[in-house]
Amino acid sequence: MKSIGVVSPQVMHFAAPLPLQSGATIADYTLMYETYGELNASRSNAVLVCHALNASHHVAGVYELQDGKKNIGWWDNMVGPGKPLDTDKFFVIGVNNLGSCFGSTGPMHINAATGKPYGASFPVVTVEDWVHAQARLADELGIAQFAAVMGGSLGGMQAMAWSMLYPQRVRHCVVVASTPKLSAQNIAFNDVARQAILTDPDYHGGDYYAHGVVPKNGLSVARMVGHITYLSNDDMAEKFGRELRNGDYQFGFGIDFEIESYLRYQGDKFSEYFDANTYLLITKALDYFDPARAFGGDLAKALAGTQAEFLLVSFSTDWRFAPERSREIVQALVRNKRRVTYAEIDAPHGHDAFLLDDSRYMRTVESYYGNVWKEIEGIESGVRA
Amino acid sequence: MKSIGVVSPQVMHFAAPLPLQSGATIADYTLMYETYGELNASRSNAVLVCHALNASHHVAGVYELQDGKKNIGWWDNMVGPGKPLDTDKFFVIGVNNLGSCFGSTGPMHINAATGKPYGASFPVVTVEDWVHAQARLADELGIAQFAAVMGGSLGGMQAMAWSMLYPQRVRHCVVVASTPKLSAQNIAFNDVARQAILTDPDYHGGDYYAHGVVPKNGLSVARMVGHITYLSNDDMAEKFGRELRNGDYQFGFGIDFEIESYLRYQGDKFSEYFDANTYLLITKALDYFDPARAFGGDLAKALAGTQAEFLLVSFSTDWRFAPERSREIVQALVRNKRRVTYAEIDAPHGHDAFLLDDSRYMRTVESYYGNVWKEIEGIESGVRA
Repeated sequence: MKSIGVVSPQVMHFAAPLPLQSGATIADYTLMYETYGELNASRSNAVLVCHALNASHHVAGVYELQDGKKNIGWWDNMVGPGKPLDTDKFFVIGVNNLGSCFGSTGPMHINAATGKPYGASFPVVTVEDWVHAQARLADELGIAQFAAVMGGSLGGMQAMAWSMLYPQRVRHCVVVASTPKLSAQNIAFNDVARQAILTDPDYHGGDYYAHGVVPKNGLSVARMVGHITYLSNDDMAEKFGRELRNGDYQFGFGIDFEIESYLRYQGDKFSEYFDANTYLLITKALDYFDPARAFGGDLAKALAGTQAEFLLVSFSTDWRFAPERSREIVQALVRNKRRVTYAEIDAPHGHDAFLLDDSRYMRTVESYYGNVWKEIEGIESGVRA
Repeated sequence: MKSIGVVSPQVMHFAAPLPLQSGATIADYTLMYETYGELNASRSNAVLVCHALNASHHVAGVYELQDGKKNIGWWDNMVGPGKPLDTDKFFVIGVNNLGSCFGSTGPMHINAATGKPYGASFPVVTVEDWVHAQARLADELGIAQFAAVMGGSLGGMQAMAWSMLYPQRVRHCVVVASTPKLSAQNIAFNDVARQAILTDPDYHGGDYYAHGVVPKNGLSVARMVGHITYLSNDDMAEKFGRELRNGDYQFGFGIDFEIESYLRYQGDKFSEYFDANTYLLITKALDYFDPARAFGGDLAKALAGTQAEFLLVSFSTDWRFAPERSREIVQALVRNKRRVTYAEIDAPHGHDAFLLDDSRYMRTVESYYGNVWKEIEGIESGVRA
């Protein structure tokens, strides 16, 4: 299948302060973003793709790196010419969220007020804060209304938040492998990850940049525990089982099993490119997301003001955000008589399935966007008429 | 219900070297143990209770502590006068395993060969090594054959190993909430725990005793992640849900949710009494247990030499060692035409259920031991006749 090819990130600076849910304010900030495809004349074909924990604005296409390697967008199988979200038709935007570590203003950046990196003083941001920041980007890009806002996992939370905070700006809301709120178990795993980082002596209270170190060990353990929750038990059994790295037990605390080798490698690799303060921030954004909270726990009330149509997708072996969590959203939407399509995909790959190729999943999304496109053609012909 | 009352641990020293599965040898060693009830004349009523990860020889009864507090045995609800394992009838033995940190020879003890604590040089011990050490204790206590060997989780693995290593010495084998081998996911969680300990700078390569510190942070994170796997998702949702500690989001990295408070407390408490080197050793013993491995993965072949009758118990919401893992054992026993009773208890408390009161669970075990007792009465009347 074709790819978009070589893409370049763009930068937008926002001089106006952004008030946050916490009561704090970010004085000014920069967002990194990418766009694919062309915005049509009626500005009716824009789709915002929101990223999850460790991803970025680099949704699709490739960066040509100096050493000949390529950095492919995290959802390149979903977004591109002829792909389910077809960039021959749609104008797609990926944006790196505030507090992340891929170019948008975050803990690694200098706080103009102090002349030092924000570090742990970077304010705790929420899904809703991100959406408000994204809305300003949409304003600057001249997009009054999105054809769709889409995301998986934490990205799906942003799509949901868009439908609630800016109901008139979202025609379709595509929420994949997400949840209306984290469970106690979800929060528990996040807190293990945070504790691993916070207690790493190289964390230095969040000011590790000044010490020329990173809390690599803590971040690596955090990633390992996270990674376990992304894979299904069955998938892990299938891929790794009890395969030994060196044919026999080593009777030490090094690596015996392939699964250990894999997870430690994933942890190490992650700790080399991801920022620990960002990891803390993003896990908190996950924990705090709970739109029903302001409505006495009633998700239907929280979604009552939405105007979008919804596509929800979940995966059978996802035990992080299990299908029943998506069904809660579907039921709350149905109670509001919203139009909603729900697909529960029987897939072995756990939570990670939302990033992987699965023909039923891809066809479901493709088909949905086919209908969104027909709507847009209707709008266009109305404009022309 | 009555308790055994005040009990005291006993000590047995073994001067003969113990060869280990790894090829290493422990020159000499001490085992801490406790006994409850009386050994009958025919020595036919002895039951060995094997402990799991963080428990000890202190199975039942209480220690009167100096400050007026009581230290109750970890399975006091199961073992005692009139309890499912009735100490008015049975002579029950609890023994602390080699490498543990409750009195039996372990990493904290002085290695006579070096004059220093073993630390990380304590040999990696396996479930089978423990069973051989326990068998020597049984020899010393004059018990040629146990009426039953019993354990939950890792303790259940020891009971299984007894039935395979000493088939003629085990009449009944009671295996609760256990598994024939750890899954990739089980191993993955154990390795996260180990990595948290090994990368804690206070671990000092296992020689932290000499530095006057303990790797408290690493051990605490290890316990947190372990603890999550002991509780069911539903139980955690029921007990903690998204309850906030201080009524509202704190927008920091301290404690927001009750589940965080609970887990951090559990982690801290554990790291104050448990030894990190022991934690490493015991997680390895768990990972390595795989009796089918020497039989090309065929569990039925591994169990072919057993002579015991079996009781297997699992719990519906246990996702650490799920019911299907117990069913694998049952099926392998059935293929060998062993007598086996299997109870799958519908209980909400996850893996921890094996330590908790549940009337169906308790009645199942009580009923099983009732039959064991009838057998013993038969043996006794035969002796008297």
